[in-house]
Amino acid sequence: MPLSKLEKLRNILSRKIAQGKINYAIPDLWNAWDYQGEEMKKIPSQELLVNPYRFFTEIIDKFVLPKQETGKDYSKSLSQVNKIKPQKGETGGDWVRKSVLYSTMIRVSSAWDHDRSFSLDESNFNELKETGTFVKMLALLPLLKKMGVDTLYLLPLSRFSLKDKKGELGSPYGVANFFDLDPNLKDPLTGSLMTIEEEFQALIEACHIIDMRVVIDIIPRTNAVDNDLISDHPDWFYWIKADEFHNYRVPYVEGLPNTISPEAKYMKQVYSSLDVKRHINMFQFDPKKQNPELFAKLKASSKDLLSEIEKHYNLRVAPAFSDHINDIQPPWTDVTFFRMFMDHPKETKSYLDDESTPPYILFDTIKSNLFPGEIPNQDLWDTLKNIIPHYQKTYGIDGARIDMGHALPKRLLQMIIKEARKNDPDFAFIAEELNPDNAEKAKDAGYNIIIGNGFWMQPRIWEKKLHKFVYGAKDIALPMFACSETHDTARIAGRDGGRTLARMTTVLNMLLPNLVPFINSGQEVYEVQPMNTGIDCTNEDKFRLPQNDLFYGKLALFDKYAFHYLNANRWELPDHLDGIKKIRNKWLKEITDLDYYEPVYFNEFDSPALGVSYFNPETNKCLLIVANTNCFNDIHCHATIKKLRDKADNHNNFGRLIYATYEFSRDYHDFSPDGRVYFHLGAGEVKIIEF
Amino acid sequence: MPLSKLEKLRNILSRKIAQGKINYAIPDLWNAWDYQGEEMKKIPSQELLVNPYRFFTEIIDKFVLPKQETGKDYSKSLSQVNKIKPQKGETGGDWVRKSVLYSTMIRVSSAWDHDRSFSLDESNFNELKETGTFVKMLALLPLLKKMGVDTLYLLPLSRFSLKDKKGELGSPYGVANFFDLDPNLKDPLTGSLMTIEEEFQALIEACHIIDMRVVIDIIPRTNAVDNDLISDHPDWFYWIKADEFHNYRVPYVEGLPNTISPEAKYMKQVYSSLDVKRHINMFQFDPKKQNPELFAKLKASSKDLLSEIEKHYNLRVAPAFSDHINDIQPPWTDVTFFRMFMDHPKETKSYLDDESTPPYILFDTIKSNLFPGEIPNQDLWDTLKNIIPHYQKTYGIDGARIDMGHALPKRLLQMIIKEARKNDPDFAFIAEELNPDNAEKAKDAGYNIIIGNGFWMQPRIWEKKLHKFVYGAKDIALPMFACSETHDTARIAGRDGGRTLARMTTVLNMLLPNLVPFINSGQEVYEVQPMNTGIDCTNEDKFRLPQNDLFYGKLALFDKYAFHYLNANRWELPDHLDGIKKIRNKWLKEITDLDYYEPVYFNEFDSPALGVSYFNPETNKCLLIVANTNCFNDIHCHATIKKLRDKADNHNNFGRLIYATYEFSRDYHDFSPDGRVYFHLGAGEVKIIEF
Repeated sequence: MPLSKLEKLRNILSRKIAQGKINYAIPDLWNAWDYQGEEMKKIPSQELLVNPYRFFTEIIDKFVLPKQETGKDYSKSLSQVNKIKPQKGETGGDWVRKSVLYSTMIRVSSAWDHDRSFSLDESNFNELKETGTFVKMLALLPLLKKMGVDTLYLLPLSRFSLKDKKGELGSPYGVANFFDLDPNLKDPLTGSLMTIEEEFQALIEACHIIDMRVVIDIIPRTNAVDNDLISDHPDWFYWIKADEFHNYRVPYVEGLPNTISPEAKYMKQVYSSLDVKRHINMFQFDPKKQNPELFAKLKASSKDLLSEIEKHYNLRVAPAFSDHINDIQPPWTDVTFFRMFMDHPKETKSYLDDESTPPYILFDTIKSNLFPGEIPNQDLWDTLKNIIPHYQKTYGIDGARIDMGHALPKRLLQMIIKEARKNDPDFAFIAEELNPDNAEKAKDAGYNIIIGNGFWMQPRIWEKKLHKFVYGAKDIALPMFACSETHDTARIAGRDGGRTLARMTTVLNMLLPNLVPFINSGQEVYEVQPMNTGIDCTNEDKFRLPQNDLFYGKLALFDKYAFHYLNANRWELPDHLDGIKKIRNKWLKEITDLDYYEPVYFNEFDSPALGVSYFNPETNKCLLIVANTNCFNDIHCHATIKKLRDKADNHNNFGRLIYATYEFSRDYHDFSPDGRVYFHLGAGEVKIIEF
Repeated sequence: MPLSKLEKLRNILSRKIAQGKINYAIPDLWNAWDYQGEEMKKIPSQELLVNPYRFFTEIIDKFVLPKQETGKDYSKSLSQVNKIKPQKGETGGDWVRKSVLYSTMIRVSSAWDHDRSFSLDESNFNELKETGTFVKMLALLPLLKKMGVDTLYLLPLSRFSLKDKKGELGSPYGVANFFDLDPNLKDPLTGSLMTIEEEFQALIEACHIIDMRVVIDIIPRTNAVDNDLISDHPDWFYWIKADEFHNYRVPYVEGLPNTISPEAKYMKQVYSSLDVKRHINMFQFDPKKQNPELFAKLKASSKDLLSEIEKHYNLRVAPAFSDHINDIQPPWTDVTFFRMFMDHPKETKSYLDDESTPPYILFDTIKSNLFPGEIPNQDLWDTLKNIIPHYQKTYGIDGARIDMGHALPKRLLQMIIKEARKNDPDFAFIAEELNPDNAEKAKDAGYNIIIGNGFWMQPRIWEKKLHKFVYGAKDIALPMFACSETHDTARIAGRDGGRTLARMTTVLNMLLPNLVPFINSGQEVYEVQPMNTGIDCTNEDKFRLPQNDLFYGKLALFDKYAFHYLNANRWELPDHLDGIKKIRNKWLKEITDLDYYEPVYFNEFDSPALGVSYFNPETNKCLLIVANTNCFNDIHCHATIKKLRDKADNHNNFGRLIYATYEFSRDYHDFSPDGRVYFHLGAGEVKIIEF
């Protein structure tokens, strides 16, 4: 077998060890294994000074490669490496239902101020990169393994647009080219000896060797207003007059309420609105159609094509906006939509004053799954369906989340899913579907899991939304993520309840029925600053950090940002998850199969206590998890679980407390003969009992 | 005029600015001027990240060179630069009586952990030096000027022995070659473009330009046991049998008390002591005398001469020890004595059993001024008298302290002083004389000042030694240093009374009669760890720092050490001294002339208050300084100074409080008609009143 990319990386780094007298600091959390470099020094900040070449060489040598099995090609998806195929009747990709996901934006998760200059530099005092890279991501793998993570969920890593960029670095959601990697993720540690593609391949191989899958995020619906495709396919985009650009706004439909879905019944009223007419009138035919010779000339010139188009045609690409009618969000000026159909929507085109109107963006054309045209943009669809196969073949990814997949034409979505499973029958699909009511639909489309609304339900402990989320999960057609935050939402440790709430939900999420643990990078060190304030954030959430913090007011999705890996008690959650992981692994079959599940209800009125249990009749063993969702006071509570007790039969088989998140509060009473069990739970405590 | 060495240094550094993308931290105290480098960044530790090349270039360009006067050659002593010669009847060098000295060991004072690796490296991550250098010493000059310092007093900077070295780096008092500079003080910032000699020259030029003199410390009495002179002059040294070396100890004279001076009256008893006989019997003739051919052969071989001598002759150089009889100190194994005379002492040789005994070290031969022989070691004397002229001609130094000068033959001392003043009539000499009773003798020998016992008297506030020191100073034949610590003693901030005591004495010392302000480097930032525990130290003094301090238990004289320039309130003393400096300069004539001095006594019994005053009848103005030596409680006190009041005549001329070390305690009452003045003084407060 040829040298793997990981081995190539290892050899390049290793050869540079001798020249590496470098002032390079990393947080101690990056050494969650047992690095022994003689040069390593722990300094009072709790950082480690290491020779980065030796450090990364040794992670590969001592943490990753020993787990390698001979004869396996880890550049393929892990299911292919291990020759796992879905059984008959199974949807491929259902492995994701048994996994523990870690959502990470590599640029951020592996960022560190290595030279301690109190700025994150793209080239620091040692000409090394301080924002995150594929190579540096290796340092997090031991920590993730410790926490029981077995799936790396990567936020978009394609090259994104820098035009009118958001924040200091720009948003990875404004993709400029689906097939290029974000060049920021290239690491100067390897210099020119390795390409960025090889570095990503090496990272994925390393993950696969340590039995960790890799899932990416693809964005086929929106893309940057200066996407590379424009030069070859100007007709795949929507255009407006450049000199009217400053007037571009989301049309307002009088008489309709705010933020409603674009259902067919509203569309007549939408099209008869004067503001919608004004809006549609702004659109123009694409420059190639207007004057193909001129377009060819401009394209051939070495000048910036978009500027030339603006100059010669007075045209600009139209920005995207929400698909909801009368949504209050302003247009998303950095992204636009693809034209999914070459004609107007079949159902609404009759509302147009003139059917020869140029293509336009409106609630119906955005929601092209509900309002398809009759002529698919076949070339575009072919391009989009090839994105995942490209990443499968080049990198061996194991699954994908499809951003705004619900807004794609149904047939395109089917093509995308089918194409990927042709290459890898066990490829997993995650739906960007927040509404559990749509789980059934997502399941039918071929998704393995939906994101769900955990991030919104879990923090609302006083309204009992966490109870509703946990107890209701069993009735949802697909598993959802057991998560209390995402990269778009407020941080759980920044919410009312703080670290206690974060600890309770993070631990509890590892053991819930029909719910898949999902950790948002930074959550494990009680990060309080959201990465983006896209969903469920107040304005205060943007300023959760102290004013003298280097990252005060910064959003990781757009700005230079490193997590607070030196936070006090930074090892607390990783240590808890390390303990919980063993319980989860032992009980994985029962936790991930609703047949074994039994909810636990408490006898007190409106009790903050919450409980789940799993009973396996074959082994006659039961796992009981109870949590106090009150993060400010301890509680006494009791549950009647006679049925469980009966099942567990043997009256001598007293339960054993196998985990508690409070070291000094192990007060637990066994069943009374009438089937009651009594608990004393600390504020936000989780207790786990096996019997 | 040719380019000065300072200009050469400036040009070398300046050319390197562009290549200096270096992670280089300095304490903010090193920027006591107004450095404006665009790259400068203050980090939370209160350090500044700077490009060292630009930083040091700009100190020279913007702080030093603007004070340069055209046509002056600053490579000469400042008195020569300014063509100052002593007036008739004046001893040359009396400028030192009006000066403010700053005692510094360059290796320590300009040391810093520039790469923040939590170790002081001789070559750090950037291959730069973290122990102090001549070049880096430039960074301290603005701070010293701020504090009113006008004389840099340098601890020994000759190349010292590394044989059996003390501590991590060795002691600068074990000189291996008087004419070489300590190579550790060379700075890699200039690389090979400048020699260490030129760097020292550049530093001295910089000092002279900013009107600061430079005084060095020379050590003609003791020297390293592997001094370079041994190969040419083995007969200048004392030798014992190598295989008896482990038995070498200070001979004990029964019947005499501990630690007494070797007066003539004791010597008969000394020589009749059995242990002294044993001791004398250890000594042997030098190897050259024993076998000149063999010695020539060994010297010509490339092998280590001392080892060869030990191997072939069974000889080793005898270590030095205290000149006091029955002193409890063990031998000083790193240094030995020169043989000042080629014969035995005239006064005591008759006590020897055999006058052909080989030369030996004993209390009388050590104290060769009291017990001279008849045949001076003329070649050695010529060598020693040429040390200062070498430093005068090569570096333009302004004065010197002579270590153990009182133990040199009187005639040698005269030669040394005469030779120096031949080159520079205004050259100053500082006597290492701790006993004020010997001031008269030192004055006669040609010294300008003695060290005195301030370091011992000042901290003993409860025993009223500070009072005795201050009120008694006017009666001493030479000025002494107004100091509360030296490089050999405990630190004043580490004594009982702590920073309050340190602040009180440091401020007070600037304004005392017949006493010359002397600041021990580190004192200005309340350093608590002594540099050496040679004098007036308890064993606890060696461990004044917290255990987790990088320099816990280290002694700056022997170990890698940097002062705690980041100490809280590190600017407090420099700021006070900045204020006091203006008062001192205004009143310098009166402070340094006992004719204007009048002590101030307080009326309370045993008052902790202490006061001095200066009255100038020509201007009819008076300066009054009062201090509360109680560093724990405030006091109310009053003094009757009717005479002063009468002198100051005008009853409308109320005194004006011009300085107080307590910002919020400016309570001061003017004179009452009967000549009383009332004070309320905070703990350790110093108040200054002008009227």
